[in-house]
Amino acid sequence: MKIAIAQLNPIIGDLAGNSAQILMAAKECLDQKVSLLVTPELSLCGYPPRDLLMHDGFIQEMAIALGKLAKNLPPEIAVLVGTVEPNSQAEITGGKPLFNSAALLQNGKIQQVFHKRLLPTYDVFDEDRYFEAGDRPNLFVLNIGAGHNLRIGVTICEDIWNDYKFWGKRFYTSDPVTDLAQQSVDVLVNLSASPYAVGKPKHRESMLSHSAIAHNLPVIYANQVGANDDLVFDGYSAAINRQGQVIARCLGFVSDLLIVEYDLETQDLRPESVISSEQLPEAEIWQALVLGVRDYARKCGFKKVVLGLSGGIDSALVAAIATEALGNTNVLGVLMPSPYSSDHSISDALELAKNLEISTEIIPIAPMMLAFDSALANIFTGRENDITEENLQSRIRGNLLMAIANKFGHLLLSTGNKSEMSVGYCTLYGDMNGGLAVISDVFKTRVYALCQWLNRDQELIPQNILTKPPSAELKPDQVDQDSLPEYEILDDILEKLISDRLSISQIIQTGHDPQVVKRVVQLVNRAEFKRRQAPPGLKISDRAFGSGWRMPIASKRTSSSQF
Amino acid sequence: MKIAIAQLNPIIGDLAGNSAQILMAAKECLDQKVSLLVTPELSLCGYPPRDLLMHDGFIQEMAIALGKLAKNLPPEIAVLVGTVEPNSQAEITGGKPLFNSAALLQNGKIQQVFHKRLLPTYDVFDEDRYFEAGDRPNLFVLNIGAGHNLRIGVTICEDIWNDYKFWGKRFYTSDPVTDLAQQSVDVLVNLSASPYAVGKPKHRESMLSHSAIAHNLPVIYANQVGANDDLVFDGYSAAINRQGQVIARCLGFVSDLLIVEYDLETQDLRPESVISSEQLPEAEIWQALVLGVRDYARKCGFKKVVLGLSGGIDSALVAAIATEALGNTNVLGVLMPSPYSSDHSISDALELAKNLEISTEIIPIAPMMLAFDSALANIFTGRENDITEENLQSRIRGNLLMAIANKFGHLLLSTGNKSEMSVGYCTLYGDMNGGLAVISDVFKTRVYALCQWLNRDQELIPQNILTKPPSAELKPDQVDQDSLPEYEILDDILEKLISDRLSISQIIQTGHDPQVVKRVVQLVNRAEFKRRQAPPGLKISDRAFGSGWRMPIASKRTSSSQF
Repeated sequence: MKIAIAQLNPIIGDLAGNSAQILMAAKECLDQKVSLLVTPELSLCGYPPRDLLMHDGFIQEMAIALGKLAKNLPPEIAVLVGTVEPNSQAEITGGKPLFNSAALLQNGKIQQVFHKRLLPTYDVFDEDRYFEAGDRPNLFVLNIGAGHNLRIGVTICEDIWNDYKFWGKRFYTSDPVTDLAQQSVDVLVNLSASPYAVGKPKHRESMLSHSAIAHNLPVIYANQVGANDDLVFDGYSAAINRQGQVIARCLGFVSDLLIVEYDLETQDLRPESVISSEQLPEAEIWQALVLGVRDYARKCGFKKVVLGLSGGIDSALVAAIATEALGNTNVLGVLMPSPYSSDHSISDALELAKNLEISTEIIPIAPMMLAFDSALANIFTGRENDITEENLQSRIRGNLLMAIANKFGHLLLSTGNKSEMSVGYCTLYGDMNGGLAVISDVFKTRVYALCQWLNRDQELIPQNILTKPPSAELKPDQVDQDSLPEYEILDDILEKLISDRLSISQIIQTGHDPQVVKRVVQLVNRAEFKRRQAPPGLKISDRAFGSGWRMPIASKRTSSSQF
Repeated sequence: MKIAIAQLNPIIGDLAGNSAQILMAAKECLDQKVSLLVTPELSLCGYPPRDLLMHDGFIQEMAIALGKLAKNLPPEIAVLVGTVEPNSQAEITGGKPLFNSAALLQNGKIQQVFHKRLLPTYDVFDEDRYFEAGDRPNLFVLNIGAGHNLRIGVTICEDIWNDYKFWGKRFYTSDPVTDLAQQSVDVLVNLSASPYAVGKPKHRESMLSHSAIAHNLPVIYANQVGANDDLVFDGYSAAINRQGQVIARCLGFVSDLLIVEYDLETQDLRPESVISSEQLPEAEIWQALVLGVRDYARKCGFKKVVLGLSGGIDSALVAAIATEALGNTNVLGVLMPSPYSSDHSISDALELAKNLEISTEIIPIAPMMLAFDSALANIFTGRENDITEENLQSRIRGNLLMAIANKFGHLLLSTGNKSEMSVGYCTLYGDMNGGLAVISDVFKTRVYALCQWLNRDQELIPQNILTKPPSAELKPDQVDQDSLPEYEILDDILEKLISDRLSISQIIQTGHDPQVVKRVVQLVNRAEFKRRQAPPGLKISDRAFGSGWRMPIASKRTSSSQF
């Protein structure tokens, strides 16, 4: 008996296109005599659909699309499709208007509909905003011919993330997996849309193995793949046998179709040869960022991208990512030297462009600097030069890049890293400009690590970019460390503050200089207004700025240990 | 027996400052022999604290601040303070780590802690993200001397918003008010932080009256006042007797302390003379926007603001609001004419500045336009002028304004209205620049109405600004209606789409031209990337862009009726 996982890359809201993807997978399954096809969570509308769910018209269209899909699918295959279903009792008994559901389609009909029971409402997830939780175990009986029946337990994403023994704590009061195990299901399936973070593919697989062993159940895990705005879905769907072994796995970061065999005699998935998916964090992050750029451009309808090449390491990395994502002929690098730019900033950027084989333009910004300076001379009489003039240079560059983006219909990529975004070492309406912030969740120290990794076989990022001291070059002889602690120190403090959520005093206890810690935390607080206006940034950590980071701007911290 | 409501204006996170506000109110109550003082929801940390709640250090500081407050308050008064309390069972039984609570402080101690039962998770609210719901009715017995006891039922904000008979539907499965009525409480109190929307003060009072009558209970409603980022809290705290009459009411849009008398004989609040709070929507919105600007500036530490004065109606209204909020000497208007600016744009702006008595600067932008044009001439060879050059003008202005804001430490106000923000008739990194978008939730037709209302006694907004056709003046003889439907039509379509969430076909059924509706909806979808990078905008409607609007950017709508 064959079970298939369609690891699909939907476009949010594209009911016709996403249906076509499901149909195509089902047709391939038909040729291979698959009995059950599992697709990802909300595979019909893509995850996360966000506030599209608040428009009844969209919900109605989805119901129509689901009905049409049921009719068009090969009747002999059972297909689990992720969709939403209205909660008809909501206004009478109270509750949210929708369920996050999995519909079982077979023989031209919607046979059964299952409701997600655990609704993630943390970080980037807002499911309590839209959905009512299902209140019972979800299972169905699959007739696989010759009098054989299989009891299939259905879970949706978060439903499997409450394994008390694995996590050492409970997140929700109920555990849908335990409930299904008690209902003696033969196979556990999960429709997922689990976003990427560094190391998460491995951790997720450990959890799945743990549950398979704990409940002596084979697990079929179907994850979404592809990027939607800030979220990258890595895929790595997998089939795990009763012993907790991954017997087959989809590729990471691409669409894939996986077919496995359930053996009626052993009552388990038939073992296959599978290699470890473990890889260096740099390799994993690289693939996530490449997919993030590729999908954002594609799903927004852009073919080409433009970015500023400063000769620094951030723009070098983003250029390399964009080139991998879209092809060298679709990347334009713009060099915008000022009188404060070093000679090597031009030569380094040009060498990078040569290595990547991308085209470049050079636009010196001195004429615009002069024009702004003289326009403002009168108002600024008697005032010293300060950060204002530095910001102006950055904003002139931002304007030039947007003008090129507008004129040619290119997508502008912004190149700021997470260290900068944290402490506000970036210019709003300047270098922060762009439709997508490619590395805004990558700390500076990791930017270096990624570039080193990228250069493992051949020098893509010119050596001088890796070795020279980082500088914004907005005034003579400026380097980042005039204003900031060494990046090793800064990033460690930021990691503890942002990811580990330590207080000032706790961070100091780990050995950092109290004055440095306090200053960094103050900078992070003050930069909130900039981050609020940043473009969506690709999330690769467990706590990224963006949709999962919701901080007040107008606020005051009156305690010394307070974040 | 006297009960007091402290309608406070907290700063988010400012535990010391907010404690001081509560203390000051209590001291005033002491002089007036008040027995019970009620403060707003989360009065200790301010509402909404958002992701500050995810930092344990902050939670611990709040517990310390609460203990200190209990000690410092006059022992003889019972004070209900809004705070959070850890959910000690969370990791064992599953559930969120905190409760949204009301602490009863008396005799130097925390006497009891009550948990909010209904957690709003819609629009701008994210309470399920942080809080576990309380599971029982909250009440305490207040000893008021001479052997008299009062049973006080405690609810927190949303707890009173599930009146089935008032709304005609249920939002939650339980109704804390009915539960308390069944427990025979004598008085119902509510600690609230209910954000403003047009007409909401009146609607809220109707609901409170309805509940008072339905349960034959006096209601003490303590609402937060003041603005926190995008949210304005109007206040209008009130005391309502068993007959549903508002017997006393706090002022709207300012801090206030209200003391009412509970009559032990009638077992009801003693009637007082109170005038209707009803006013024109324009008057209400005006006060909300003025408070929004004043508090954002104050709480972020700005004394002065700067804005561009185009001679158009949007910037005129924002200038008037800023002048009212901060005083005429704290508002700087900057005129930045281009070769496409009409003569009247300068004279109208200067006349406005004269009427408001604010200072101005004039900076012609032609030199910067020339500098950019020649810098880009080479790359743009053979291309026609288009929207690129229009955006450049807007971005030059945006840069000049930010330069002034940076140099002088002013807050830049952006002046775009909701109609523009909806259809993207605005320039990212140009006129959208600013720390606060003052009227981004005000449709253009309402901008006119507000200005007409403002001119009711004397001409503040020059007549020519009100009568000339609106124009961005980014190319010769341009008017808005070259690109957009008449604003009456546009705003009606937008209202139906955004607030009423109608589908394309439903909007067409109300009588609009199908082609116009489809084009408007397409424009709204396409402008999502701009809105994502907009500054926080003051919310005055039931559905504003900003923290309560969560739409995907990379998406595709494949059905003709789909939003």
